[in-house]
Amino acid sequence: MKVESKMRTIEWNYKKNSVEMIDQRLLPGEFIIVEYTDFRDVVYAIRDMVIRGAPAIGAAAAFGMALAARQSQASTIEGLRSDLRLAGQGLGDARPTAVNLAWALLRILGIVEQFQGDPDDLRERVLLEAQIIADEDVEINKRMAEYGATLIESGDTIIHHCNTGALATVDWGTALGVIRMAHEQGKNIHVLVDETRPRLQGSRLTAWELKRYGVPFDVIADNAAGYFLKSGQVQKVFFGADRVASNGDVANKIGTYMLALAAKDNQVPAYSVVPTSTIDLSLIHGGQIPIEERDPAEVLDLEKKGRPMSPEGISARNPAFDVTPNRLITAIVTENGIVQPPYEANLARAVEGLLI
Amino acid sequence: MKVESKMRTIEWNYKKNSVEMIDQRLLPGEFIIVEYTDFRDVVYAIRDMVIRGAPAIGAAAAFGMALAARQSQASTIEGLRSDLRLAGQGLGDARPTAVNLAWALLRILGIVEQFQGDPDDLRERVLLEAQIIADEDVEINKRMAEYGATLIESGDTIIHHCNTGALATVDWGTALGVIRMAHEQGKNIHVLVDETRPRLQGSRLTAWELKRYGVPFDVIADNAAGYFLKSGQVQKVFFGADRVASNGDVANKIGTYMLALAAKDNQVPAYSVVPTSTIDLSLIHGGQIPIEERDPAEVLDLEKKGRPMSPEGISARNPAFDVTPNRLITAIVTENGIVQPPYEANLARAVEGLLI
Repeated sequence: MKVESKMRTIEWNYKKNSVEMIDQRLLPGEFIIVEYTDFRDVVYAIRDMVIRGAPAIGAAAAFGMALAARQSQASTIEGLRSDLRLAGQGLGDARPTAVNLAWALLRILGIVEQFQGDPDDLRERVLLEAQIIADEDVEINKRMAEYGATLIESGDTIIHHCNTGALATVDWGTALGVIRMAHEQGKNIHVLVDETRPRLQGSRLTAWELKRYGVPFDVIADNAAGYFLKSGQVQKVFFGADRVASNGDVANKIGTYMLALAAKDNQVPAYSVVPTSTIDLSLIHGGQIPIEERDPAEVLDLEKKGRPMSPEGISARNPAFDVTPNRLITAIVTENGIVQPPYEANLARAVEGLLI
Repeated sequence: MKVESKMRTIEWNYKKNSVEMIDQRLLPGEFIIVEYTDFRDVVYAIRDMVIRGAPAIGAAAAFGMALAARQSQASTIEGLRSDLRLAGQGLGDARPTAVNLAWALLRILGIVEQFQGDPDDLRERVLLEAQIIADEDVEINKRMAEYGATLIESGDTIIHHCNTGALATVDWGTALGVIRMAHEQGKNIHVLVDETRPRLQGSRLTAWELKRYGVPFDVIADNAAGYFLKSGQVQKVFFGADRVASNGDVANKIGTYMLALAAKDNQVPAYSVVPTSTIDLSLIHGGQIPIEERDPAEVLDLEKKGRPMSPEGISARNPAFDVTPNRLITAIVTENGIVQPPYEANLARAVEGLLI
């Protein structure tokens, strides 16, 4: 680890009018901040996972729109609108599964479509909205963390999948934010960190975060979660989500479904922690969520001490997400409270803020 | 891949009176044969996984005893017996979970205890028995493959966990032997190869074998098995075993339990393929099987292009096996036929060869 600042995962630089983000591909070896002034570079950054995590890429899309607004040469409000619609398409297509991308873009474009006035004022307004989205994310995460931490007891061992910490959000985190909050409340907890193949967000990013926070943990191969659950060593399972359907089916990082199955088989509660922006009430069930399949190289390019870990010239399949059916989800923690089944009714109430 | 011979995974060299084996730690990058004349080096080879796979380490223990018999300076039969009992302890302790180690040693030591005659004749007799064990393993594997292949239909996509091929046995393989047989019978099959963290026996060894056999396959992260099962793309799941309790609980490579859970949740049959030497009728259930926990470095020492994949100074847990309860096992394929539930009665019949 070379450098470390107190910066958020993603920030607008008001001096340079640029978007800055931590390059998460390089962690934990190097802590590098990258800076973009072209929204098309933000599309690339999302696609290549310079930045990842559903809430973080929502913020990235919003700041990408702020860049696009500055880049547009349009001198009329209609011309600027047209440029922003196009930029929104590019950003929205960067990754298909997490709905936060579409959610953030819809929020920005809603303002763009209704705005009356000078193009430069709209440019400012888009940046302001992106900044509000980012600031809200941090606040929302802390509220989720407070709710979620009530589910954790001192003495708990918790399995956590993927990375859902500060790095997956603008700051603080969703599921990992809950764990961090429980730790800060003085609860004595231990985390089993799923390494989370193929991109290893667990052993790279979550381990890096937990080490900084001083939360005790061990990394495990994803395969080992079942062993620890079955041998009675685990009290809770926590993960985030990339999209939640209206019935409570949860699309999340590949492997979540098998983890939730193993939790259920051993009567260990499994919680998904999501901002309501991740809930997609337009979908009846999880089978409607598009699942991204990524480059097979992510599976095949492992090495140990420079030694390749697969033969040359072979192929791989690499779905990046799976859908965990609602029957395996004990509760869904949101910024508006903890949503229990039946999810059809209660998720809609949570989105409307009527839960509590 | 540098060299490739037609040799078995493990063989006795009758010219040099040594044990030769393929160093499986180096595959697929390098194909290197190592040669041992000291049984204590065989203990190390088993422990460090130069050789692995339940049937293969059974044969390794047997040949280790043949080395120990030659190494013994004893001039009396009692002295040689005493040396061989000690060697047997060392070899038996090399790895705890696979029962084949104890099974092979018991078979050799049974002869040692009863033998009457000259110490040099006993030395020859021990080597002969080790050779019989090795030869039988190949024959047994082919019989299992014939039985198991009847379960596979043309058009099947099969998930396979760990490595259970020629490399896991003396030759041919157990679960992968079934798949290979179905392929040789002209059945049109496709294999999804679980990479099998942490040692990557799938992406290193199974991929290497399937490529040689010409069986179509894709490597997947272990996490992705649930996705493919749930989306209806998989018809069968096959794996081996390191020890089967009398009730049909199966100890096998870590991750098997979660895989079998996902198969069950989607009504996809899951088969364990084992020689009867892997069945331990002395155990009532799988909870009695000792589970080896290995060096955390196996989880943490991954790299991508020389870049470490976890922060320095963190810890990991590394159980090497888990127990899949019998309710998740559709059938157990042995050399004496396909064992269906109820396993208590039928496994005992299979061990006695009464199944068919």
